[in-house]
Amino acid sequence: MVRIIMNGCNGHMGQVISGLVSEDGGAEIVAGVDVADKGLYTYPVFTDITKCDVQADVMIDFSSAKAVDGVLDFCREKKLPLVLCTTGLSSGQLEKAEKTAQETAVLRSANMSLGINTLLKLLQDAAKVLAAAGFDMEIVERHHNLKVDAPSGTALALADSLNEAMDNQYHYVYDRSQTREKRDTKEIGISAVRGGTIVGDHEVIFAGPDEVIEFRHTAYSKTVFAKGAVEAAKFLSGKPAGMYDMSHVING
Amino acid sequence: MVRIIMNGCNGHMGQVISGLVSEDGGAEIVAGVDVADKGLYTYPVFTDITKCDVQADVMIDFSSAKAVDGVLDFCREKKLPLVLCTTGLSSGQLEKAEKTAQETAVLRSANMSLGINTLLKLLQDAAKVLAAAGFDMEIVERHHNLKVDAPSGTALALADSLNEAMDNQYHYVYDRSQTREKRDTKEIGISAVRGGTIVGDHEVIFAGPDEVIEFRHTAYSKTVFAKGAVEAAKFLSGKPAGMYDMSHVING
Amino acid sequence: MVRIIMNGCNGHMGQVISGLVSEDGGAEIVAGVDVADKGLYTYPVFTDITKCDVQADVMIDFSSAKAVDGVLDFCREKKLPLVLCTTGLSSGQLEKAEKTAQETAVLRSANMSLGINTLLKLLQDAAKVLAAAGFDMEIVERHHNLKVDAPSGTALALADSLNEAMDNQYHYVYDRSQTREKRDTKEIGISAVRGGTIVGDHEVIFAGPDEVIEFRHTAYSKTVFAKGAVEAAKFLSGKPAGMYDMSHVING
Amino acid sequence: MVRIIMNGCNGHMGQVISGLVSEDGGAEIVAGVDVADKGLYTYPVFTDITKCDVQADVMIDFSSAKAVDGVLDFCREKKLPLVLCTTGLSSGQLEKAEKTAQETAVLRSANMSLGINTLLKLLQDAAKVLAAAGFDMEIVERHHNLKVDAPSGTALALADSLNEAMDNQYHYVYDRSQTREKRDTKEIGISAVRGGTIVGDHEVIFAGPDEVIEFRHTAYSKTVFAKGAVEAAKFLSGKPAGMYDMSHVING
Repeated sequence: MVRIIMNGCNGHMGQVISGLVSEDGGAEIVAGVDVADKGLYTYPVFTDITKCDVQADVMIDFSSAKAVDGVLDFCREKKLPLVLCTTGLSSGQLEKAEKTAQETAVLRSANMSLGINTLLKLLQDAAKVLAAAGFDMEIVERHHNLKVDAPSGTALALADSLNEAMDNQYHYVYDRSQTREKRDTKEIGISAVRGGTIVGDHEVIFAGPDEVIEFRHTAYSKTVFAKGAVEAAKFLSGKPAGMYDMSHVING
Repeated sequence: MVRIIMNGCNGHMGQVISGLVSEDGGAEIVAGVDVADKGLYTYPVFTDITKCDVQADVMIDFSSAKAVDGVLDFCREKKLPLVLCTTGLSSGQLEKAEKTAQETAVLRSANMSLGINTLLKLLQDAAKVLAAAGFDMEIVERHHNLKVDAPSGTALALADSLNEAMDNQYHYVYDRSQTREKRDTKEIGISAVRGGTIVGDHEVIFAGPDEVIEFRHTAYSKTVFAKGAVEAAKFLSGKPAGMYDMSHVING
Repeated sequence: MVRIIMNGCNGHMGQVISGLVSEDGGAEIVAGVDVADKGLYTYPVFTDITKCDVQADVMIDFSSAKAVDGVLDFCREKKLPLVLCTTGLSSGQLEKAEKTAQETAVLRSANMSLGINTLLKLLQDAAKVLAAAGFDMEIVERHHNLKVDAPSGTALALADSLNEAMDNQYHYVYDRSQTREKRDTKEIGISAVRGGTIVGDHEVIFAGPDEVIEFRHTAYSKTVFAKGAVEAAKFLSGKPAGMYDMSHVING
Repeated sequence: MVRIIMNGCNGHMGQVISGLVSEDGGAEIVAGVDVADKGLYTYPVFTDITKCDVQADVMIDFSSAKAVDGVLDFCREKKLPLVLCTTGLSSGQLEKAEKTAQETAVLRSANMSLGINTLLKLLQDAAKVLAAAGFDMEIVERHHNLKVDAPSGTALALADSLNEAMDNQYHYVYDRSQTREKRDTKEIGISAVRGGTIVGDHEVIFAGPDEVIEFRHTAYSKTVFAKGAVEAAKFLSGKPAGMYDMSHVING
């Protein structure tokens, strides 16, 4: 039984993960950490991470960027493996995560779903064939109408993946309405659609002469991200220090 | 047999229309007009529209904005019905088209396909129900990598159609990457994808709470626009003076 | 405040509706009916519908076909408007529902979502133009891997809607693998995809010469059906006897 | 300059390939073979393949199953590499193709497009991750209303590719309307949509818990298949005897 500390247990993702783990025979949450104990759980909730003294195998963090420094200090000191799902980290925090990974296992990913992480890899293989053959690459993402950033972190991760496969020769274009020019062959257009309660759709388009290939991922609920985080936690438990990502989980 | 003068007969659309009409039992091209006679056709080609003295029932124009003034003069003088497919007209030319329509039948449309013109009407009905119920409206269009303008004229026509149905309370947004704000309820996002040889895809999205409705049009070749122009020509032949659009053709 | 009796309150849809109404300022559930009282709710739950003596304005029924006779008797006797969402009714039950509607308001629909019900109407307008112009009509639906019936009731309702618009000249085809024949012009192909936890996608395709128009509805959760049922209940409260459907709710 | 003999030069694909090669600086058609010489080409056309004595580097065959025996005899005798695109071959002909490949290079493929052949490989990688994780696999294909076979050969090739990746444990299901059973975990549903002039769309769906991944290929014209055949011809010229497929062309 993998013992998990859930950092950010009161947040939306913390709640979904707590529900998911309670039905999972292979893992349990032994403690939570958040700014307040709202009495939502049977497990103990600590409002100060430094006071959390429960024995555990791994921590999942879905909190906020400003809490991440404390999380990294805690995991380094306790040699506790960390699944780091909080986004919007500063470059200083990213460096600190790398340093922490020298002393314990750290897994970081822009998107925890199995589907997106499978695509990230396949798209590189696709780009090496199709972009090399002159196909144009474009990304369209769709999210709910409350999302403030655009394009999504996942769309950027997909673009980076394509670009990396092509020796980083591409640049990204977010708006074509202000110019009257034909498309540059080395651009990746990224469009952001916003509306309703769409959880997260991502579409990668390879458009060539008289044929189009599309890769599309649709998330129907946030459970899909929670599930990925729990799988990652089970995988990371007992692993040696180092930096990991979801591709390690997928490839076992 | 409806007798057509094809203005812009050497252009890509002129060639497609000429091919299409040659297999149509109900229409024939009796003359062409273009800057040169390339000897492509069995019908006579005039390089000066004012010299074209062939009896006809209707003209189809797929030329260029700068040729349109001559076309309008010609049709007004001859009382010849005109299917005006050339885009990018100046406001002066649009006015001149209106004036011409006082003396002969003029049909103008941003997109000649049956599909798009059917959608233009249905989308207004959809908007009155769905946008009124709080659904967000978004448009994504895709075209080939040589197209210089974005978004497409058809995408703008679709947006205008939605907006008109909602008393023109909406504004259009082409780029969300420069701000960190949640979506305004009165915006219509319009995204332009460019790649390969895509003839023209248009997608209108209504996104509400936990459900999404999409209307999508895909053109597989330019024949679809040619066919619409020929249908329009047949319809317009013999019609009284006035301004027409494709909805008149569709509703017969 | 519209007072609702929820028949089938312990089922999945009963639970979703109960949650939804509790956050709705314009309606409340005053009683539930189900085979057992599991203590899920603050409102009283009756295990025998005939014992339910709570004053109410409307009943929502999401139970099972075998419970529907009792529901109809109850509503007729009490002159209680009924939103009848249970599917798989026998022809005898459908007749009984019609009879009940002579004495109280009854609203029945194969799919409660605003989106599908809007499509049902728009598709008839589309068919009258596009099918009349020779476009072929096809339907593809997708549902989760536990659904036992195929195609879905909603797909059949969409097909019936198309067919009705074309004077019922069409027949339905579910399998093309057993013959080697070209498509009949008067057929509507209906395909059923099953996989994962897909809540319900429906796609109606009009395929013509060189252009395709698609209408697609995606449900992201069952909340969308619950919401439609509650809207229908609010609409039906106080209405005179008669048979209603969701188009009455949408058109106010 | 790769010298090609085009077998079936008067057919639709023969014409498209002839047009394509005439604009290609790296290949030329030096002779055609067909049942009649219609005078379509500047190159010589032979009505009897055994009389074709023009020096060449490779033959492309897009003819009919009954012509294929003669083609195989011809290529074996002349040691002429063969791109064999004709489909619907008998098992005897498939064996004969294998034997021919012992003496000259033979490349055979159900679909000549770069896109489909790239997908065939990527889908195997996807299946090994996603199907192994419990995702259901489904295929939907769309073709024009004159196509008599269903599902398409390409859809079957895609299914075979998925199945092979999963140790051939899956079976194919073409119709779900005749049973009331939930989906078997080891089935691949294959649906065939027919309508209009659709050149060929193929969609492979991986549906898991709360997420769906789709791979979609759209052909906009038959040029895409012609292009693949020409690329294959250039690749095969000068290659040693053996059986090849498009994956060899793609991987260079």
